[in-house]
Amino acid sequence: MIDQTTPDSIPLIRSLGQAARQAQAYLSMAPDSQKTAALLAAATALRAASAEILAANAADMAASVDLGAALRDRLFLDEKRLEAIAASLEMIAALPDPVGGIIAEWTQPNGLHIQRVRVPLGVIGIIYESRPNVTIDAGALCLKAGCAAILRGGSEALRTSRALHAAFVSGLVIAGLPAAAVQLVPTADRAAVGAMLTQADLIDVIIPRGGKSLIARVQADSRVPVLAHLDGNNHVYLHAAAHPEKALAIVVNAKMRRTGVCGAAETLLIDQAIAGKILPRLIETLHEKGCELRGDDAVQAFSPLVIPATLEDWGTEYLAPILALKVVAGLDDAIAHIARYGSHHTDAIVTEDPAAAADFLARVDSAIVLHNASTQFADGGEFGMGAEIGIATGRLHARGPVGVEQLTTFKYVVHGTGQVRK
Amino acid sequence: MIDQTTPDSIPLIRSLGQAARQAQAYLSMAPDSQKTAALLAAATALRAASAEILAANAADMAASVDLGAALRDRLFLDEKRLEAIAASLEMIAALPDPVGGIIAEWTQPNGLHIQRVRVPLGVIGIIYESRPNVTIDAGALCLKAGCAAILRGGSEALRTSRALHAAFVSGLVIAGLPAAAVQLVPTADRAAVGAMLTQADLIDVIIPRGGKSLIARVQADSRVPVLAHLDGNNHVYLHAAAHPEKALAIVVNAKMRRTGVCGAAETLLIDQAIAGKILPRLIETLHEKGCELRGDDAVQAFSPLVIPATLEDWGTEYLAPILALKVVAGLDDAIAHIARYGSHHTDAIVTEDPAAAADFLARVDSAIVLHNASTQFADGGEFGMGAEIGIATGRLHARGPVGVEQLTTFKYVVHGTGQVRK
Repeated sequence: MIDQTTPDSIPLIRSLGQAARQAQAYLSMAPDSQKTAALLAAATALRAASAEILAANAADMAASVDLGAALRDRLFLDEKRLEAIAASLEMIAALPDPVGGIIAEWTQPNGLHIQRVRVPLGVIGIIYESRPNVTIDAGALCLKAGCAAILRGGSEALRTSRALHAAFVSGLVIAGLPAAAVQLVPTADRAAVGAMLTQADLIDVIIPRGGKSLIARVQADSRVPVLAHLDGNNHVYLHAAAHPEKALAIVVNAKMRRTGVCGAAETLLIDQAIAGKILPRLIETLHEKGCELRGDDAVQAFSPLVIPATLEDWGTEYLAPILALKVVAGLDDAIAHIARYGSHHTDAIVTEDPAAAADFLARVDSAIVLHNASTQFADGGEFGMGAEIGIATGRLHARGPVGVEQLTTFKYVVHGTGQVRK
Repeated sequence: MIDQTTPDSIPLIRSLGQAARQAQAYLSMAPDSQKTAALLAAATALRAASAEILAANAADMAASVDLGAALRDRLFLDEKRLEAIAASLEMIAALPDPVGGIIAEWTQPNGLHIQRVRVPLGVIGIIYESRPNVTIDAGALCLKAGCAAILRGGSEALRTSRALHAAFVSGLVIAGLPAAAVQLVPTADRAAVGAMLTQADLIDVIIPRGGKSLIARVQADSRVPVLAHLDGNNHVYLHAAAHPEKALAIVVNAKMRRTGVCGAAETLLIDQAIAGKILPRLIETLHEKGCELRGDDAVQAFSPLVIPATLEDWGTEYLAPILALKVVAGLDDAIAHIARYGSHHTDAIVTEDPAAAADFLARVDSAIVLHNASTQFADGGEFGMGAEIGIATGRLHARGPVGVEQLTTFKYVVHGTGQVRK
């Protein structure tokens, strides 16, 4: 995906970046009503342009017959998917505006009044793969947060992205906002991605959306700070005091509700004290639902449906109906396993013992830790944030779901009456 | 400062990093009383070891006779400076513990209770130059925030840093905390710095402290996220409705209180409407205090004490008794100048017009914006944060003073009663 920059790619990205900077200065002062109007107008424009958009998508699909079925499914749009994209614009329009909110304020003994005020994060570069809906969702979230966006989608979706972007821009223009608030890199030249990663004076943050290899390469190469969304190798730990019915329901949901999402559970850890009581029925239920089960020796002893797990299984994000299972000696053993193999995304404990829960929640170093709930709640919408660009697994700035609020930063506003420092 | 990594430097830094990870896991659960006890014991140990520390410093000073006077002054310790370092340990010990604080909490309609809880940022790499006090201050701030620190000071201060670090570690050990909570890179080999910048799995954040060239190279080379503290090319803008006495006091303080700090003003912008009323006396006062004045044509017309400014002056952080002065047409002109030449650190407006102040504070995109107060208040202590590692000028995570709270991140802690996702 990322190639060396070419002589042409740097001037192209710099000209997009300079336009984005100007647009962002304007956006940072735009009232919420204007941003909302733009998003609603974009939704209307999107519906009105559905024939053109679907035609562009059909052309992309026709040109991508050599791609795999999963990739082609991600690329594909129909009326229903397009309507969902338009509806997401309306949902984002209705979110509260985070800009200008006072996060904290206090007065110093010398009378200086200090406010920490929320401001847009700046110019965001989004690098993504084939899902055309990201063009609209990411652009809309950035706009709502007062950020300018430079979108670089997959080359296989370029016709679709262009058609979607044109509708979005018409919404901006109708509301009187600068068209450069959300720009699409207009070329399939992969060097453009490399160029984006070098322009730290014009792009404030890069958010990569896509597979592991894309994100790893962006992280390795970027001179611009990256908000990373890495893999979710998530665990459910059934503690000795787990309620059997809750345990069964949570594990089945965490693994099987949707297996391709980053909040899906990949490894089940079960306390040896309750393995006999819970595992046979759990294994049977998961097997019936089509889940492949890979266990250590202790787990295999409970059922012939379990095949042997290898060391590699503990570190694998399957994103598929496969579950790794391991019997652990207790809470410390479970926490140590998660520390060693987890990806700091989302991990859950099932227990009726509040002290064990508190210990797990404090010691497991993941963006999201849950007690008696499914890992599939790892989602900005489920957290009440309305929409998200993804789940950040880094430690700086944002952790967990990245919604409009996480696309802001702050400044200190200080009011004095002539104070000077001694 | 930063050289290529050598075959030896990577294993050294990895072994420090692995020890730091283990220590940090312990620290993240340590109660405030234990961290406080360690810091107080370190202050006691520092005072008890003052003879050894001053002897080590004398050896560093003797070995650095070829360095410039400014660098040698930074390196130098005496009883008084050592006592200030010990007192800063006690001050940091007394700060409130940020870890475990609940930043926000809410309950979703499905009954899930979501808390955003403050946790330590992790393992922090501090790369600094000759000031030995950073060894103690940075280590203490990290410890209070539950972070492990890997300190890499200037090679010219290595004997002093080792002696200070030994006292700090004895405080850790007395309080029962792991010695690896705060480690000093034990070699003057510059390749160690390059090695630190590559170990993103073991070091969570790099904080460089020092001159522009060090920071720029760290930013350019680091694979680990950097909390940057860049230059403060700070402006004071005297608006048409500025109070003349406040204006005079603020400009003199902002420029001359201490000229070598990052919050010092470097450029004065003055509204043409009040230039005649304010400039002659202001220029005379600054000149009497030993400040060199460099102005545009309009400023020069007010006084023969002003020498011509060049384009370069607008972008220069002097850190010296030199002030650039420019007459502007009004608020928009002042804001445009700051946007073009400023460094997004600290900028102030002096005016009795609240609407003009609000406009300036909203539109100037700097970490700290002030109304009727000196830019020299840009300091964690003056903000009530107790102590700071520096003033962050980046947009991600922390902006403005970086104190103990800014050395934390958060996790989401979710309590359910068996919820699964639909």
